[in-house]
Amino acid sequence: MSRTPAGPEIERLIQLLAKLPGLGPRSARRAALHLLMRKDKLLEPLSEAMRIACERVVVCETCANVDTQNPCSICRDPRRDGATLVVVEDVSDLWALERSGAVSARYHVLGGTLSPLDGRGPEDLNLATLADRAADPEVREVIIAVNATVEGQTTAHYVTDLLAGSDVKVTRLAHGVPVGGELDYLDDGTLAAAIRSRTAF
Amino acid sequence: MSRTPAGPEIERLIQLLAKLPGLGPRSARRAALHLLMRKDKLLEPLSEAMRIACERVVVCETCANVDTQNPCSICRDPRRDGATLVVVEDVSDLWALERSGAVSARYHVLGGTLSPLDGRGPEDLNLATLADRAADPEVREVIIAVNATVEGQTTAHYVTDLLAGSDVKVTRLAHGVPVGGELDYLDDGTLAAAIRSRTAF
Repeated sequence: MSRTPAGPEIERLIQLLAKLPGLGPRSARRAALHLLMRKDKLLEPLSEAMRIACERVVVCETCANVDTQNPCSICRDPRRDGATLVVVEDVSDLWALERSGAVSARYHVLGGTLSPLDGRGPEDLNLATLADRAADPEVREVIIAVNATVEGQTTAHYVTDLLAGSDVKVTRLAHGVPVGGELDYLDDGTLAAAIRSRTAF
Repeated sequence: MSRTPAGPEIERLIQLLAKLPGLGPRSARRAALHLLMRKDKLLEPLSEAMRIACERVVVCETCANVDTQNPCSICRDPRRDGATLVVVEDVSDLWALERSGAVSARYHVLGGTLSPLDGRGPEDLNLATLADRAADPEVREVIIAVNATVEGQTTAHYVTDLLAGSDVKVTRLAHGVPVGGELDYLDDGTLAAAIRSRTAF
């Protein structure tokens, strides 16, 4: 007996939905049924939105952001501070920084981290054009905004070495107590970093 | 600033994905990015599977199951036991019973439960044809397989009353200890029901 007694079309929909992060086989079934019960209001618009995204969304050849134009709207935006280049691991990190409004710079998306254990070397990342972009006379600072994980920090060191010969200032995000965070719940490494990098009141 | 700095097409995809059960705004963003990064392998097939489902999936006019044919494959299946009609709340319950292989009968999907507090009365459920279906001389038993919730039990009583005049035997699912369940973790109602309905060893 098939796992869902409703024909191959629905079974295929469930199997594809189950590949989304955050959905397992059971929640994919629930999502499929939710969609099928709301054909006009959800299934059709979502199918159409996916088709349009599939057709129009491209990866920016300059910074590897995803957008409907190439170069992407951030690379094109003349109001951006062209003197700063923010290096991030993934597009989701770019989105997070944009949502925060913390910086109005251009980006360079690596598309992952170095991870020798997983066989990911420099050739697997979007590193080929980074040195050239940093060598642009307009660029004065490269902010390495990677995750504070082992892989992230390994990647940060590699990028720093890569840019060592150029004139740009290479910086990284500060470590410290998250805003709203309680000391009692923080790990020793974060506390040590927060003490080390203490600032004058 | 838009919540996602990537154009209206991606924003719309995220908003629609966030309407799926199990996905919130944050996980919808993650899912959208996952899809956009796997255009050929996931986004396009999923869009296509949704389009096909949208075109072909219909609600069975006999039992309200969803399928690609009407009447659905279960209503058409000549090997099914036509003497038994299983009344369920939703298609997901029908799927669960089919997966269990516990019964090989035909179904009647109500499409919800009675809930006076939420303003859902008998006219909102697929009840109009139930008495006629139960009056079919072939049908000998109606199993009311609704959830063991207050709304489910209210609905079960209503359905029982509805079928009171007919010749069919109306039954309901047994209450008791779930297989693999531990007594210590069960609520009093379940334990009381399991004692009340105890069977000879």
